[in-house]
Amino acid sequence: MEHVSLDHLYSSTSRKAQPSAIREICKLIDKPNMKSLAGGWPDPEVFPGTEIAGLISNLMDQNADLALQYGTTEGLLKLRRELCKLVDENYNIKCSTDQILITHGSAQGMDLICRVILDPDEAVVVGLPSYFGAFGTVKASRGQVIGVPVDHNGMNIANLKTTLDETAKQGTRVKAVYVIPNFQNPSGATLSMKRRKEIIKIADSNDLLIIEDDPYGDLRFEGKDLPPLISMDNSGRVIHLRSFSKTFSPGMRLGYVIGQEKIIRQMVVAKQFVDCATNTLSQYILLEFIQNGLLDKRIKSNIEYYKKKRDHMLAQLQKHFPSNVKWNKPSGGFFIFIHLPESMDASELLTDAVKHNVAFVAGQPFFADGSGKNTFRLSFSQASIDDIESAIEKLGLLIKEKLSK
Amino acid sequence: MEHVSLDHLYSSTSRKAQPSAIREICKLIDKPNMKSLAGGWPDPEVFPGTEIAGLISNLMDQNADLALQYGTTEGLLKLRRELCKLVDENYNIKCSTDQILITHGSAQGMDLICRVILDPDEAVVVGLPSYFGAFGTVKASRGQVIGVPVDHNGMNIANLKTTLDETAKQGTRVKAVYVIPNFQNPSGATLSMKRRKEIIKIADSNDLLIIEDDPYGDLRFEGKDLPPLISMDNSGRVIHLRSFSKTFSPGMRLGYVIGQEKIIRQMVVAKQFVDCATNTLSQYILLEFIQNGLLDKRIKSNIEYYKKKRDHMLAQLQKHFPSNVKWNKPSGGFFIFIHLPESMDASELLTDAVKHNVAFVAGQPFFADGSGKNTFRLSFSQASIDDIESAIEKLGLLIKEKLSK
Repeated sequence: MEHVSLDHLYSSTSRKAQPSAIREICKLIDKPNMKSLAGGWPDPEVFPGTEIAGLISNLMDQNADLALQYGTTEGLLKLRRELCKLVDENYNIKCSTDQILITHGSAQGMDLICRVILDPDEAVVVGLPSYFGAFGTVKASRGQVIGVPVDHNGMNIANLKTTLDETAKQGTRVKAVYVIPNFQNPSGATLSMKRRKEIIKIADSNDLLIIEDDPYGDLRFEGKDLPPLISMDNSGRVIHLRSFSKTFSPGMRLGYVIGQEKIIRQMVVAKQFVDCATNTLSQYILLEFIQNGLLDKRIKSNIEYYKKKRDHMLAQLQKHFPSNVKWNKPSGGFFIFIHLPESMDASELLTDAVKHNVAFVAGQPFFADGSGKNTFRLSFSQASIDDIESAIEKLGLLIKEKLSK
Repeated sequence: MEHVSLDHLYSSTSRKAQPSAIREICKLIDKPNMKSLAGGWPDPEVFPGTEIAGLISNLMDQNADLALQYGTTEGLLKLRRELCKLVDENYNIKCSTDQILITHGSAQGMDLICRVILDPDEAVVVGLPSYFGAFGTVKASRGQVIGVPVDHNGMNIANLKTTLDETAKQGTRVKAVYVIPNFQNPSGATLSMKRRKEIIKIADSNDLLIIEDDPYGDLRFEGKDLPPLISMDNSGRVIHLRSFSKTFSPGMRLGYVIGQEKIIRQMVVAKQFVDCATNTLSQYILLEFIQNGLLDKRIKSNIEYYKKKRDHMLAQLQKHFPSNVKWNKPSGGFFIFIHLPESMDASELLTDAVKHNVAFVAGQPFFADGSGKNTFRLSFSQASIDDIESAIEKLGLLIKEKLSK
């Protein structure tokens, strides 16, 4: 077939859309012997394959007619009931089943929120740095992304206030602040208690929503859990996103949204025309998984497993990276964020590293303002202990080489 | 929690969005003893539960690390390879793996197309009547829906030409024509060979895309398959949507899109920010299902199964409905479309019917211009043979009652 060009028929958003840096790198590095510290993918070693096989076998015996059929757009009612209990017990979040929507991953939750709240050119404030998948989602809804610096206690509050004042003066309507409160992607920073309270106050006084995206909160290696923003907010301005990709199975594409009933209802209507409903079979498997106490067990063993990997990566960094390279010590999650000396370019380092079968994600895509050239993100989640060791050693050598030039 | 109202923060599209008439009715009728001729849901009797249980057990033994992990946004490569073979053998569609995107149902395919091609107020032409889920998707992308009458041979070509001329004069840019070529939802009509050719010509001369949505094409009860529009189009203007909801399992939410490589690439980038990727486990199950010859077998037995139900419903209609009520005889699919006398209102009939535990979908939501008050859609897919009999008998009585008033 010789095809005519249809480029002129694309929408303006589609023409401007940049592919996801992570999704694209995952294709590049899909070759044998690659030691990938790039994607924030869980380690298949801890996938509950055996448990799931057992659950599905029962499910097909007893409930195939339901588990293979369309479900309601809101998500399986039994699963939403179970989640109401779970979020109360684990996070002190009080909600009804009508305040929960089950989604194809928390990415879909973010997309539905953007559809529900954003008119063209309205803005969402994000961290500098922050997860760039969220930027793409905002832009797909014709919104703007505005960055506010993040330090080791999360989003800088003074900066947030100034930014909101300035954007208001410029006539840009900010609709929401997007935060990843625990072990933020990519910085690893956890939003302090004080700042959680302040952001809630700012949302009230500026008539904003807070999008609280917490895919890593279950994976805390040390210290005490901080309460989610949604549990501290009395006005209903927080929309809380959770994911089962890090604690159950990313391939099942399951997440959920908690929010006030009316906004969840708006999101349900949006989802009706996006994909009708979430995968029923996967929801049933997850329901059984939770009811059999397997999720709690899995989370506990995952914490132990990933803590070891973090400690190992930190030790290797200490050993192999030169002293003018800086990084954080995250208390949980999957990521360590690296600051090279200002003069260095992490994307050049990546090009060299890939030639030596080592991959990571360069930091710049995480900065909505295009800064961060000298940063990069390492994930300790997926690579083996041995690969972490040799990859960090190789990266250390490459950095030293570049610095000596 | 007492929540503040956030209504003023909704986007204009979200404020205007009407819930899906089918998704909403499915919640209403979710009560025991309801004889539903409403949703186009497959009959769980033909779900391949046993086969799937067997496949999953092997899968978890051998491939849990892959089947539970994130996949690429494009979809599992092995599955796309299998689909290339399948569409060549079954529908004479020639394509490469880069021309296929696997989606969470064909609904998601439609959503991604709209995102890729529609700027605000640009239009998609649809049948009068046509599947209203597609209307909601167009509107969610800020597009307009314009209706063109459908008769027993599908979309009326003279009307299509006039409509395109008129909209062009009015300054509205039409970007695509949406057609369901086989056993259309809701009319049951199949687009004739002559009209298929004509629509392709019209797309070329008017610089349009054709969105060919074919969820029912595999379920032909009699007569010869007509070639899909995409197999007859040399310019690459057709985007072809298929679903596994009717032949495999709707709960697995699997569909795929075929189109020219560049537009598929635009859709992949859009999907990266919508839900990252399609459910991996479900894709592996489907792959095994196809490779084991189970899909072909299932389609054959489904045809036999649903043909009996259609014949039964047609016989009951003949027996119980008065002679001034008209309907079609579809050669496949799930639906029979009913025309009451002009004076009657199908939504009033629905209200009465639900009181007697019988449900269907009133026709008006299928008409983008708000007409069709005297029509309704019956689905013979999900109800049992006995329920079809008693439901049609009851509906016949209710219609006669109303006519005699």
